[in-house]
Amino acid sequence: MAQAQSSGTNLLQVAGFNENVILDAIRRSPEGMSRVELTRLSGLSPQTVSNICRRLIEQELITEGGVSVGRKGKPRRVIRLRNDSRFAVGISIDPAVTTIVLTDLSAQVAGQTVLPMADLDEPTAAVDAIAGAVSTVIEGAGVDRGRLLGVGVASPGPIVVATGEVIDPPHLQKWHDVHLRDELAERLGVPVLLDKDVTAAAVGELWAGETGSRNFLFFLYGTGIGVGHVVQGIVVRGYSGNAGDIGMVPYITPTGESGRLHEVTVPVNVLRRARSRGIVGPDLVTDTPSAINDSFLRLCRRADEGDAGAAALLTDAARAIGGACVVMADMVDADTVVLGGPIWEHVADRMLPVVAEAVATQSVVGVPRTVLGTQLGENVAAIGAACVVLESAWSPHPSKLPLARTSA
Amino acid sequence: MAQAQSSGTNLLQVAGFNENVILDAIRRSPEGMSRVELTRLSGLSPQTVSNICRRLIEQELITEGGVSVGRKGKPRRVIRLRNDSRFAVGISIDPAVTTIVLTDLSAQVAGQTVLPMADLDEPTAAVDAIAGAVSTVIEGAGVDRGRLLGVGVASPGPIVVATGEVIDPPHLQKWHDVHLRDELAERLGVPVLLDKDVTAAAVGELWAGETGSRNFLFFLYGTGIGVGHVVQGIVVRGYSGNAGDIGMVPYITPTGESGRLHEVTVPVNVLRRARSRGIVGPDLVTDTPSAINDSFLRLCRRADEGDAGAAALLTDAARAIGGACVVMADMVDADTVVLGGPIWEHVADRMLPVVAEAVATQSVVGVPRTVLGTQLGENVAAIGAACVVLESAWSPHPSKLPLARTSA
Repeated sequence: MAQAQSSGTNLLQVAGFNENVILDAIRRSPEGMSRVELTRLSGLSPQTVSNICRRLIEQELITEGGVSVGRKGKPRRVIRLRNDSRFAVGISIDPAVTTIVLTDLSAQVAGQTVLPMADLDEPTAAVDAIAGAVSTVIEGAGVDRGRLLGVGVASPGPIVVATGEVIDPPHLQKWHDVHLRDELAERLGVPVLLDKDVTAAAVGELWAGETGSRNFLFFLYGTGIGVGHVVQGIVVRGYSGNAGDIGMVPYITPTGESGRLHEVTVPVNVLRRARSRGIVGPDLVTDTPSAINDSFLRLCRRADEGDAGAAALLTDAARAIGGACVVMADMVDADTVVLGGPIWEHVADRMLPVVAEAVATQSVVGVPRTVLGTQLGENVAAIGAACVVLESAWSPHPSKLPLARTSA
Repeated sequence: MAQAQSSGTNLLQVAGFNENVILDAIRRSPEGMSRVELTRLSGLSPQTVSNICRRLIEQELITEGGVSVGRKGKPRRVIRLRNDSRFAVGISIDPAVTTIVLTDLSAQVAGQTVLPMADLDEPTAAVDAIAGAVSTVIEGAGVDRGRLLGVGVASPGPIVVATGEVIDPPHLQKWHDVHLRDELAERLGVPVLLDKDVTAAAVGELWAGETGSRNFLFFLYGTGIGVGHVVQGIVVRGYSGNAGDIGMVPYITPTGESGRLHEVTVPVNVLRRARSRGIVGPDLVTDTPSAINDSFLRLCRRADEGDAGAAALLTDAARAIGGACVVMADMVDADTVVLGGPIWEHVADRMLPVVAEAVATQSVVGVPRTVLGTQLGENVAAIGAACVVLESAWSPHPSKLPLARTSA
């Protein structure tokens, strides 16, 4: 079903390796850099840095100006990235909440929309609806299409990286072997990159988040659950691009009950438990992702209003998530666990302390680990999908590298 | 307790980046390469390749000779690695079976010894005994110490990478904050690299194994258990160098029993279960790692001789290992699960089919995954520790790379 992939994608490319080294240095310095600083930092010659800067100014990727006084009292002309010179679109396909964002080069959201759920049900109609919504967002933001680097899609798995297909997402009954990447590329006329939702969320957190970690787990809580992970600064996509499937991870409660993670965390299963305990009536509607989403949010509100039964179910979910995060963080030795996603935003206040306590008290390695919610909000997977485009276009991947001819 | 580390170590360095690109190309071609082929493969100029080859011949790292006839009928002089030009020592510290190997550049074992267990009990005596055994192995193989690149140590965790300490290994009661790396380096007078045992095993499998995978898990079964993993060709060490701790991963049996992985797999715990079920007598000795090892191997022999109770305990262990491998392989999307280690060699025939069946039938992602025993034998962690030295000395890490000055 799936084929091996190399790490990262190189479909898009803003510039060559040295240009990207310079761009990356400028990007990471919001207060700007001078040519002298860029020369020192890059190890390139002043002439090479000048040539690169001239080309980048011509391409409107950077600006130079705003003389400020350097540390030694000398005036310096400050080079900054023109964040609004290029844009990326990110699409997060969650069966209940599909979101489209347009971001600039700093991953700031310049426009967004949410797709009506019914539009997603049937895949051909879904592709049409998504393509239409992308165009609407781009036009609404007044962005020239020539400045669009590409479109990233964060999809539930399993996916096939080589063909850009989405196979059989559990919560989209009518989706089978959908050639999402190529069909969107054809309709939109720009490069499209497909990644799993959890992978995109991890890319987003690495690229635009405030975590600052290079070894973290990203627990994505939406209509389904999954975990993205970054080790040693590298986003783990795995052999087939399907890393992050954790629904079958077993959990054991402090009182000795056990089960699989999805049974007590995925919204539709939490609602089934609520029904079997009589917390919600037998007439509860769970026949569409949208209905499940609405019913789950009502359950959350009841818990917030003091319903002990509803609260207990959410605590069970949080404990199971915490237990899974402990063993996963110990396994990959992550220093940070980040949580986010459309469902997470509604349960964060209740669940974060439970997960944090589990990680703090149950980890066996003895290394301190940070647990926190993403600062990117409920659109983290969509922003992450845009960051997949930025990452591909932008990063000075060693794979883009010519051999260093001068050192021999 | 631990500090962040960068990926890989650069303590040792055979040569610069371009030299290592050439060396690596030669290493990967056992049938040898010509200068013309190296020029084509590397993208370097013929003059640069000639200069590099001259230097590598002077350093006795390669030989050139043995004229053969190329594809177009032209004679070509074949360049080959001199595998016996440099050596590495690998030490695997398992409380029951500590092994020292000497390997050449191809990770072939040129000498080895096993340390008596009693020598390991007290850390200062252990360092003395290990250093003495290393010297014995080197001298026994008739290798010039000037040709030794360094010593790698595969240790049970937790370790502190920054200081080279082993903290509190569960099965070595008297070891606390042992500065193993520096004390060995002082006694031996060569660079010493410290890694966790599971990390070393993964490096060994990647470097010298026959798996051929770049996305695999390595389940190490010795006095303790753990898992090394490689994603996208990169060995995962994690934030603090302690990746691979999986003892607390929960398992659920097909009949609904649940527990933590270490409870049914670690030899001392299997023996406790055997005692509680009356399969072994209450006088069973489990007071030292050596006694545990011997008792466990007796239990394995009884299972092989038809003892149903002993066999059931080993099947329980195999099922739990299989279940854990399923969820871990799904999480990181590994295409291969490799098993090995000093205990594994005694249970491989019994356990491999159970683990393979679990991975084949329980994985949810739908990607085929291979399950196999390592071809490196019970010394895999020691060979892996030597490979940590080779990897550090040898690989053309991008971190060794100057910027490409000619491309601007």
